[in-house]
Amino acid sequence: MLPEEAQPALRALGFGEEDAATLADHFLDAERRGKLGHGLSRIPWLATLELEPEARPRRLEASAGYELWDGNGALGYLTLAAICDAVRADPPERARVVVARRCFPTGMLGYWVRGLAEAGLVALLTATSPARLPHPEGGEPLVPTIPLAIGVPSSDGRPVVSDVSMSKVTYGDVLAGLASPANLVPFGGEDAHKAFALAVGLATAAEALSGDAQGALLVVARPDGDPVPALRARAAGRRLPGDR
Amino acid sequence: MLPEEAQPALRALGFGEEDAATLADHFLDAERRGKLGHGLSRIPWLATLELEPEARPRRLEASAGYELWDGNGALGYLTLAAICDAVRADPPERARVVVARRCFPTGMLGYWVRGLAEAGLVALLTATSPARLPHPEGGEPLVPTIPLAIGVPSSDGRPVVSDVSMSKVTYGDVLAGLASPANLVPFGGEDAHKAFALAVGLATAAEALSGDAQGALLVVARPDGDPVPALRARAAGRRLPGDR
Repeated sequence: MLPEEAQPALRALGFGEEDAATLADHFLDAERRGKLGHGLSRIPWLATLELEPEARPRRLEASAGYELWDGNGALGYLTLAAICDAVRADPPERARVVVARRCFPTGMLGYWVRGLAEAGLVALLTATSPARLPHPEGGEPLVPTIPLAIGVPSSDGRPVVSDVSMSKVTYGDVLAGLASPANLVPFGGEDAHKAFALAVGLATAAEALSGDAQGALLVVARPDGDPVPALRARAAGRRLPGDR
Repeated sequence: MLPEEAQPALRALGFGEEDAATLADHFLDAERRGKLGHGLSRIPWLATLELEPEARPRRLEASAGYELWDGNGALGYLTLAAICDAVRADPPERARVVVARRCFPTGMLGYWVRGLAEAGLVALLTATSPARLPHPEGGEPLVPTIPLAIGVPSSDGRPVVSDVSMSKVTYGDVLAGLASPANLVPFGGEDAHKAFALAVGLATAAEALSGDAQGALLVVARPDGDPVPALRARAAGRRLPGDR
């Protein structure tokens, strides 16, 4: 699929103009960053799902430091887009925890925290999905690949954007034929118990807070410091997370 | 040092009875869990620091969903103890982000989230410390070992407590002579770029939010679900994070 074919293909699945543009922007950004498992290959995959292109995410609760959202049948991508738009339109005075139910699929989580970091906010985001990783000792899949994405603004205009799945390979890469399903295991080889522990902690936290197995957890806050430029100077040209 | 010698040794460093008991409880819990690098070996190490045993942490800001604390010269252990006591005394209606400045050393972070999980709260905690881990490509230390601890309550009385440092070994184990300083590198072998990215994200987020290189970040929230018993059943007897 060519980049210019993305929006028409999404319109053909029933999405309106704005939603098709939102989805295409996500997939094309993934392509540009080389994260092909989250890129255009997702459009034919979407066609295999039961879509509700008219569904709109709903904000169920909102207070100074907390919001609860429900995907309400909309794709997780569109739910996170609505949440991030709402945060940018009304940023927290200090900090806010945003929980979403029925928020799936969520794509490349770094995309969402990058947008918030570019708006000057620190953001941490995780999201559950079906269990795909077994215990390091073996057995059936117990936990999702469960990425943790962290965005931190920088006065040099180059935010840190860390986006790490706890799996050796992403499920997106398996879907795209770029990795073997046998590598859907906690990353780290002899240290895999560490990635497994992170996966269990993040997945149970997100599920406990959302009350849902397809839950997302976002923490967004205003920074009081600007540590990235000094880190970048000490890194002396070595790549930091989020750099092209 | 014998367990019963911990409190007298801490009193001899100038700590009052209550603080000595708080510190001893932390070190003895680490010993019982086999985390010797966070155990009694820390008492002679404390004696090498410039201590202010009379210092008390201060809460600088408090609103429904956010608090800012300052260690104010007190040990990080005692600052986190005061924060957790304050959370348990007045839990968030939904969620709260707590940021601490000058919060060092913080010990075994799983200890703090376990106490919150036992009080029925989901908690995520990270804390910075001096840079000890280099970039996976080499060079000087760039980021701290930066653990992420996650506690999730369970109706079966056995919370999930995940507590993962991004280093192959903990600095505490190096201090205790249990690990080589050469293993102060991001964990994961050929996947070490993932642990490094998590370390950069967590450390810059905590430093940006606290405005301090010795900052801590705690997110605490009430659960809406109880995913741990079902996960434990599916794990079929395999060890989950936090199990003895």
